[in-house]
Amino acid sequence: MSTDFHVYDTTMRDGAQQEGINLSVADKLVIARHLDDLGVTHVEGGWPGANPTDTEFFARAATELDLRTATLAAFGSTRKAGGSAASDPQVQGLLDSGAPVITLVAKSHVGHVERALRTTREENLAMITDTVSHLVGQGRTVMVDTEHFFDGYLLDREYALACVRAASDAGAEVVALCDTNGGMLPGQVHDAVADVIASTGARLGIHCHNDTGCAVANTMAAVEAGATHVQGTVNGYGERTGNADLVTVVANLQLKLGMDLVEPYRLQDATRIAHAISEVTNHPPFSRQPYVGAGAFAHKAGLHASAIKVDPDLYQHIEPKAVGNDMRMLVSDMAGRATVELKSREIGVDLDGEDETLARVLARVKTLEQRGYTFDAADASFELLLRREVGAGPTQYAQVESWRAITDVRGADVEALSEATVKVHAGGRRIVATGEGNGPVNALDEALRQALVVVYPEIEQLELIDYRVRILDAAHGTDAVTRVLIETSDGTTSWTTIGVAANIVEASWQALLDGITFGLMRGGVPVR
Amino acid sequence: MSTDFHVYDTTMRDGAQQEGINLSVADKLVIARHLDDLGVTHVEGGWPGANPTDTEFFARAATELDLRTATLAAFGSTRKAGGSAASDPQVQGLLDSGAPVITLVAKSHVGHVERALRTTREENLAMITDTVSHLVGQGRTVMVDTEHFFDGYLLDREYALACVRAASDAGAEVVALCDTNGGMLPGQVHDAVADVIASTGARLGIHCHNDTGCAVANTMAAVEAGATHVQGTVNGYGERTGNADLVTVVANLQLKLGMDLVEPYRLQDATRIAHAISEVTNHPPFSRQPYVGAGAFAHKAGLHASAIKVDPDLYQHIEPKAVGNDMRMLVSDMAGRATVELKSREIGVDLDGEDETLARVLARVKTLEQRGYTFDAADASFELLLRREVGAGPTQYAQVESWRAITDVRGADVEALSEATVKVHAGGRRIVATGEGNGPVNALDEALRQALVVVYPEIEQLELIDYRVRILDAAHGTDAVTRVLIETSDGTTSWTTIGVAANIVEASWQALLDGITFGLMRGGVPVR
Repeated sequence: MSTDFHVYDTTMRDGAQQEGINLSVADKLVIARHLDDLGVTHVEGGWPGANPTDTEFFARAATELDLRTATLAAFGSTRKAGGSAASDPQVQGLLDSGAPVITLVAKSHVGHVERALRTTREENLAMITDTVSHLVGQGRTVMVDTEHFFDGYLLDREYALACVRAASDAGAEVVALCDTNGGMLPGQVHDAVADVIASTGARLGIHCHNDTGCAVANTMAAVEAGATHVQGTVNGYGERTGNADLVTVVANLQLKLGMDLVEPYRLQDATRIAHAISEVTNHPPFSRQPYVGAGAFAHKAGLHASAIKVDPDLYQHIEPKAVGNDMRMLVSDMAGRATVELKSREIGVDLDGEDETLARVLARVKTLEQRGYTFDAADASFELLLRREVGAGPTQYAQVESWRAITDVRGADVEALSEATVKVHAGGRRIVATGEGNGPVNALDEALRQALVVVYPEIEQLELIDYRVRILDAAHGTDAVTRVLIETSDGTTSWTTIGVAANIVEASWQALLDGITFGLMRGGVPVR
Repeated sequence: MSTDFHVYDTTMRDGAQQEGINLSVADKLVIARHLDDLGVTHVEGGWPGANPTDTEFFARAATELDLRTATLAAFGSTRKAGGSAASDPQVQGLLDSGAPVITLVAKSHVGHVERALRTTREENLAMITDTVSHLVGQGRTVMVDTEHFFDGYLLDREYALACVRAASDAGAEVVALCDTNGGMLPGQVHDAVADVIASTGARLGIHCHNDTGCAVANTMAAVEAGATHVQGTVNGYGERTGNADLVTVVANLQLKLGMDLVEPYRLQDATRIAHAISEVTNHPPFSRQPYVGAGAFAHKAGLHASAIKVDPDLYQHIEPKAVGNDMRMLVSDMAGRATVELKSREIGVDLDGEDETLARVLARVKTLEQRGYTFDAADASFELLLRREVGAGPTQYAQVESWRAITDVRGADVEALSEATVKVHAGGRRIVATGEGNGPVNALDEALRQALVVVYPEIEQLELIDYRVRILDAAHGTDAVTRVLIETSDGTTSWTTIGVAANIVEASWQALLDGITFGLMRGGVPVR
């Protein structure tokens, strides 16, 4: 792999500045290992000294983290105005972290120097020179992030260039130009980067934010102009609109521009890694995310489906497996026979040539979609529908006699209680069970499990993990119908089922029952 | 405004190809009006004839939709191979819709012509010429979307250009080049667009997808190369990774490149419109979305906060109000106090200088927000909170003794029934009332009205018009909390109240009760 090009990850530092992301030390250790798997060259772990969590992270990383590909970097800033790097406690904190690489944020925008730092142009240059050379003298590799670079360059080009030179001359390995406010467009970035290289000869990096929706494009433009160090975050986490999505950048550079940045097997792990990291941050993954999103290769339009039958490449820009993703056919009212056939193939039911069956299944799908069902969001319900139409069961583990759910509250400041009772026939017997929960659906779920667990102990593996409800009635006064989507997990994978009815609890019950049915069927459980 | 530049919205056609988005006719009518408010020049409503929902949409639009800025467009395709446009039913369906503009998708990639359509290069050109001239002859304005254009152009430039010429020569007003698979990078798009303009002189449009994370940048690159028609969707909806986000594109072109596309007051409405449309699609808005995302101008880093105190422009690339958004400080109680003060002034409660009260209210808000309340989305609940804290009532019309809701079903194919009973004290008496509905919340609403109507007949003016529920639990296993937003109307205006609780019915009850309380208070109804 090219050792001259840096893939510099700042998920745990800049990414952590996103609203709602709060990483513990344990979280950071886990994320660091995922990033190492991905093959990035640098992992920016945080701001030790300034941030106690980060101080602890670097301390523990020294003994607990065994990075094989990436080098750990500590982030901090140039020394205080009017002081000296050698006696600056913040700078000392960076050294104390033990990180072999230290990245300093430095001002390069005259407005910020004078109004935010309230110092002089000369002193700011001295802060850069002093801090960089001090750290280099201490044996560290130093990178410098020139903050607000592009805005500063447009305001006062000479001063911005002077900051770059100061950093580079003092021994910084890379000077990363930062579009801190995210307001740049690709052409501006390209021209500025080319000019800076021609004027200073410094080795440049690029750090973009997505405020104009161009973070990735700006990063690529910088690389095309000669930058050899890209910064970004996994899943595009970051302040405001986020940082450049590092996986998208790497995939583009490697798969589109033919650069060798990470071994292909690592890129094939990208989808798994991006999802694993979103589990740690507890931020729901974005389905439409380029390359690694769950929907990135999901095709819905009927036109597209019939072409994909001929050749998947007709509607895909790359082979999804190159980034560890999969192609998916979505079944909806836009579906045609080809969609149903491909979907069936996906689940192991061969309907090639079975025109009558295909037509019947398609008609059923369209009828239900008219009523509010959306199979493109509920793959498992579609599979059950298909199996029921072609008789490829089992698709029913219990016969439901009746159910009811009661919620009541007995005072002004008392919590409400929900309780449900179900009466079913399963395993040759009639079972009555009652469950409690934080709502009618949760209570029904508990009751159903209690009813079935004796006959189907496998049900204990299944868990309801997501519940979404939508009232399908744009104009009040007309008959409302409720659509419920339920996601069930068996600990390894998960699936979504749908229910539609006039009554919201009934719609939920449908989705619930199918969710459990699907789980048992997929687990190969026989009807008892 | 420039009448020569087209802002062409395809939210309801290409956007609807996104997984999980299913628009009813009513949904489309609502969205069309929002798009008209935004100031787009064209609204692509769907594929009438091919899609029954769309056929109905165009039929109803003819009498129910009064667009003041936008022109309605119908989407369809060139005629079938080997036939004639004049006798092609699909083409006739487009004419029958009555739409003044018809946009045809046409193949321009040799591979697709031969393998997907299974016809010849010549016949495909004839399909374009025939269909375009037929529709132009029928008095329609015709646009042509050249599908897979850039891939086709790279494979066989001459043929791709021939397709563009065929469309243009037959009378198409615009030929929109489509990056259908989304695999292009900005430089490629720029060069291709410039070449096509130089070689054919056609008026070009651009239609991009986000598979390389460059949809917006590709669109801008095309405009810089001479395209005068941009296609996109609100909130970037679309197949796979989505289409170019039209609001981001318009904001970039207008605020960064100084183009006059929509009146400034319309762009200032962009945040509201983008959110309103996401309510219709029932897709949670993306907080990090450029310009209009809830987090687009939310600042967290300490460095940023102290600088912003000096001058917001130091950390923002534009003034958020230009797109109807707001700056938010995520750590700063000074900003918090100001918000409360401004809000109080708005409702006629003067808290200027009342530091202790402001602090108390702020503390209460923060406590509740920690628990899941989001007052940004529930103005009426915030007003009630404020009035309760400062004693500016009335804020309670009834004391609730108890309530309960039962839903049950008595067989396998019988509809579920929901019934609720409430026991309250109002107007000096104790009232027990029962209501029925299509769910526990609807039944509680009915019961509550029945209970209060004798004492407060004004309640008959009020109606629950929207109900949204979100389970606030990203990681199953932790305690789930449900947030419910209820919109109530008095026929003239409407307001939103919020409820948060572990139990979903209880959360709904809170929001319901506050919704009615607010309505009575605002109506000046005294406590009886």
